[in-house]
Amino acid sequence: MISKAQIKRISSLRQAKFRDEEKVFVVEGVKIVQELLESQISIKTICATKDWIEENINKASKFTKEIIEVSQEELKKISSLSTPNQVLAVLNQIGEKEIKYKENYVLVLDGIKDPGNLGTIIRVADWFGIEDIVCSEDTVDLYNPKTIQSTMGSFLRVNVSYKDIYLMLSNLQDFPIYGTILEKGMNIYETNLEREGIIIIGSESHGISPQISPLITHPITIPSFSKGQGPESLNASIATSIICSEFKRKLKI
Amino acid sequence: MISKAQIKRISSLRQAKFRDEEKVFVVEGVKIVQELLESQISIKTICATKDWIEENINKASKFTKEIIEVSQEELKKISSLSTPNQVLAVLNQIGEKEIKYKENYVLVLDGIKDPGNLGTIIRVADWFGIEDIVCSEDTVDLYNPKTIQSTMGSFLRVNVSYKDIYLMLSNLQDFPIYGTILEKGMNIYETNLEREGIIIIGSESHGISPQISPLITHPITIPSFSKGQGPESLNASIATSIICSEFKRKLKI
Repeated sequence: MISKAQIKRISSLRQAKFRDEEKVFVVEGVKIVQELLESQISIKTICATKDWIEENINKASKFTKEIIEVSQEELKKISSLSTPNQVLAVLNQIGEKEIKYKENYVLVLDGIKDPGNLGTIIRVADWFGIEDIVCSEDTVDLYNPKTIQSTMGSFLRVNVSYKDIYLMLSNLQDFPIYGTILEKGMNIYETNLEREGIIIIGSESHGISPQISPLITHPITIPSFSKGQGPESLNASIATSIICSEFKRKLKI
Repeated sequence: MISKAQIKRISSLRQAKFRDEEKVFVVEGVKIVQELLESQISIKTICATKDWIEENINKASKFTKEIIEVSQEELKKISSLSTPNQVLAVLNQIGEKEIKYKENYVLVLDGIKDPGNLGTIIRVADWFGIEDIVCSEDTVDLYNPKTIQSTMGSFLRVNVSYKDIYLMLSNLQDFPIYGTILEKGMNIYETNLEREGIIIIGSESHGISPQISPLITHPITIPSFSKGQGPESLNASIATSIICSEFKRKLKI
């Protein structure tokens, strides 16, 4: 049984303010919670339907402090999804790890605003073996429910940190900083690439900000194959995937 | 001034049933409507704030039958956006054109359910010079407001049609049909590609359907570079962009 106070507390975690106060976040749905259990991460609270609990009690009780049975209606009250799916877990926020700059790429996100885009970028990074993402302080919250859902579990494997990216990039010395510039960048399909570096991804509506642009040492561009006018730009997560695909293909690392 | 009946009518266009009855759809926002005006497409109705009308009246009146001034509150009532942006246009649905199979790729979407994904795929196709997309009949509606918004105007340039894709693919003879298969597909980075063909993109949750899979003549796979477990799959629009990027890069068409 879930109490009224618990319903209120868990619902409040939709808002960043309450998530940050408690230093927790929420993960939902059978598939992602399954990944949590397999990754053996410690879970504070699981709220789940009777069926889910019956099927998963052995595995779930090993890593979970508290398991609460909820009805479909109660799950709907605490969920951020329009159609909640059997189970919701509350976890401690993940500590930021040290960034590994050597022999890999680090993604730097400059003001990504859409949680779905951030989540998809994390999933893309995970697919391409990129272990570190640094977000500017005005990037959307990693723990926004929509971000977490769109990572499809990749938040477990990619180290996401928030920093003053101007300071961080200014302090790097002799380290390649790639960034997409619509005009006069090197064609990503034709340019030689370094074995390590930063890849900056600009925001959905404004691209890379005027403060950050001058720090780019290796301007790149994704050429369009459109025969006519074509679109002005690509979505941020789409641009990320094309760049990561091309970098990794060429360097095979 | 907008009448109550007009508010009711335009709001009803959020639903496919009413869009299809009238054979119209809605486009919103300063940027996309700007593209409409530049493309010289004929517009049935524009509802816009006083400021927008003052600035655009010359251009807009050339291609628009009816221009209605609305207040911010009225715009909110007829809009599908959470923060409507100055202008909304009602257009006639676009006729499906004949598909050009030669010397290019045709995307076939097998059950894409998310309007944001469909819109993003249309934008990606436009970027990579792919002119035709064929959707299975259970793919989400092109004229869903979220689809149209995520195309960012590319619906103007890409021919999107809905068909029985099983029938369509079965009737093709000696024509390469590419499809992503997680196991045993050819690595897209290493395989030789034909200069033309179909590329099938599967649905977000189920991939390519069991009925369609056997029709694939060229199974392909996007390899993961993840060192550990990595994600199980990629989002449908991300997979599309990586495949299109790689096909176009190799063939330079």
